Amino acid sequence: MTASIEWQGPHCPAPLRDYPHVVLGHGGGGRLSTELIEQVFLAAYGDKQTLLGDSTPLTLPSQRIAVSTDSFVVRPLFFPGGSIGDLAINGTVNDLAMSGAQPFCLTAGFILEEGLPIEHLVRIVEDMARAARAAGVRIVAGDTKVVERGHGDGCYINTTGIGMLPADRQISINRAQAGDRVLVSGTLGDHSMAIMSVREGLEFESAIRSDTASVCELVHQLIAACPGVRALRDPTRGGLAATLNEIAEASRCGIELDEQAIPVNEVVRSACEFLGLDPLQAANEGKFVAIVPADEADQALATLRAHPLGQFAAIIGQVIKDDHHLVVARTAMGAHRIVPKPLGEQLPRIC
Amino acid sequence: MTASIEWQGPHCPAPLRDYPHVVLGHGGGGRLSTELIEQVFLAAYGDKQTLLGDSTPLTLPSQRIAVSTDSFVVRPLFFPGGSIGDLAINGTVNDLAMSGAQPFCLTAGFILEEGLPIEHLVRIVEDMARAARAAGVRIVAGDTKVVERGHGDGCYINTTGIGMLPADRQISINRAQAGDRVLVSGTLGDHSMAIMSVREGLEFESAIRSDTASVCELVHQLIAACPGVRALRDPTRGGLAATLNEIAEASRCGIELDEQAIPVNEVVRSACEFLGLDPLQAANEGKFVAIVPADEADQALATLRAHPLGQFAAIIGQVIKDDHHLVVARTAMGAHRIVPKPLGEQLPRIC
Repeated sequence: MTASIEWQGPHCPAPLRDYPHVVLGHGGGGRLSTELIEQVFLAAYGDKQTLLGDSTPLTLPSQRIAVSTDSFVVRPLFFPGGSIGDLAINGTVNDLAMSGAQPFCLTAGFILEEGLPIEHLVRIVEDMARAARAAGVRIVAGDTKVVERGHGDGCYINTTGIGMLPADRQISINRAQAGDRVLVSGTLGDHSMAIMSVREGLEFESAIRSDTASVCELVHQLIAACPGVRALRDPTRGGLAATLNEIAEASRCGIELDEQAIPVNEVVRSACEFLGLDPLQAANEGKFVAIVPADEADQALATLRAHPLGQFAAIIGQVIKDDHHLVVARTAMGAHRIVPKPLGEQLPRIC
Repeated sequence: MTASIEWQGPHCPAPLRDYPHVVLGHGGGGRLSTELIEQVFLAAYGDKQTLLGDSTPLTLPSQRIAVSTDSFVVRPLFFPGGSIGDLAINGTVNDLAMSGAQPFCLTAGFILEEGLPIEHLVRIVEDMARAARAAGVRIVAGDTKVVERGHGDGCYINTTGIGMLPADRQISINRAQAGDRVLVSGTLGDHSMAIMSVREGLEFESAIRSDTASVCELVHQLIAACPGVRALRDPTRGGLAATLNEIAEASRCGIELDEQAIPVNEVVRSACEFLGLDPLQAANEGKFVAIVPADEADQALATLRAHPLGQFAAIIGQVIKDDHHLVVARTAMGAHRIVPKPLGEQLPRIC
């Protein structure tokens, strides 16, 4: 082998290719992939070194972490109040916050369908960058694959998050105890009904917007004010009904709700009635359920209500002893009805 | 609110539902989702507490980590030598190993298409569990979404990995220096040609099997024997051509290959010639390129060859000074040809 190249010909950077739509080559790991990364992803977030390597070296502030992964397949990609980009960030940072962790970093994996307008991808990525900044997390690694036209639905996103967990923090859905109070941080069903309205072309008396938001700051304030918080969970797919049944099962207790105390926007309630849907099974993307000891419930409520994202928070029930681990709601008539765990999802592809 | 439920009716576990195919409800977050997790995922890997929460608490052995994310969309889902399940584990642990990290844990996010036979999903998940055990990593968090028939391709998987990075380890593709030697850990192109043969129904004189494997142990042994290793990279999408161009660009150097020294299986070489494909652009899933100082090259080669996964390892070239950051190959005739970075991928959806 010689020690230098005898190449003296002309050499200049390849001209930028201008593809208005995603093509298969954007997922091929070659020059088109690099251009997509540099022109779309790096333009919105991250630095070159971070996103172009096989893996990203990081030094964490401590050794105790929480990890969460979520794929997003919401249809349509854009809806009143947000986009799949907002959901992909907020969904994962909220999952981390539910264990009391402070989100630290995220990875983002894209599965794009051939033909997706680059302009749509840019909007999605910009929404992700903005949501990540709002939640205080960095996007530290990424991946892009492209599938042929007809084998995807524009854009699917996976985000996986690492959060930092204080050494003494023990928040888990198996810690609810009889006597604890059940709170929700705001109105229920907004996300489901926002998706439903745009998907079905329905118009209600006023626009319903998705509640997609990071609840990390609100959770941080709640834990600071009420260190006894037992359990947190965000009622996404399956809604409040699924969330409370999971808590009851995990903690081997029952939960009794006061149906009239559950906050639901008037227009969402009307939309649910019109469509025959149950707001307790509807998905939310910026809300959480908190189980707190009875003596911290008032403080918890006041803390939540003092924050813009928690202004409609309410105490909606209590944890009770019950060997059947049932969730029951006391209706306006004073009767009790069982709130079962949903079988599937009343609206598929809500997130 | 009363303090206990007056419910004395019969209560027994819901009977297991027996769906032979994935249905939309399996991604809905309700009882069907729980059953899928319990009967398919937990049966193969992980423990219940780990996989049913919003996020998973973990204590890492140290604070310095590497993070990598990858989505897998390979078509078909099963191929000679492996499946999308093997790839999803090996691809991500190998990416971690390329920074010198020891893989610690993975997350797994599934996007399933309505109608996928559950039996296929079980095979995939079992392949993942076996590959994870072989690589010494735990799967610590998961997520499953289901999209309607015609909006996916059976199964897409994202895995995201965390690896532990020793404090003094500095392996990066920007560290190659003129004079360093370039090694590959084995034959090139096997994965691409295995996929191609099954996808196109081609039969070659002998079966070509994918090389999908975790190279973590081999990398560990290489670093132990040759602490001066500068750079590692696995030539997946885009193959050796993409990998070496990325190293040359990142390190601001040139690379000169001895084309005849590059190991390619005879049957793979014939298949490439028959199909008009370039083995240097073909994808690999159990191989890596190592850049090592000249004085460690012989030791590196001996270490690689002593391991079953490295028995066909070879020194294939050297790093040279070149302001154009070109990769050139010296052909059998003694001429030099430029090895360009591929534009896209010669075979889409190879991983």
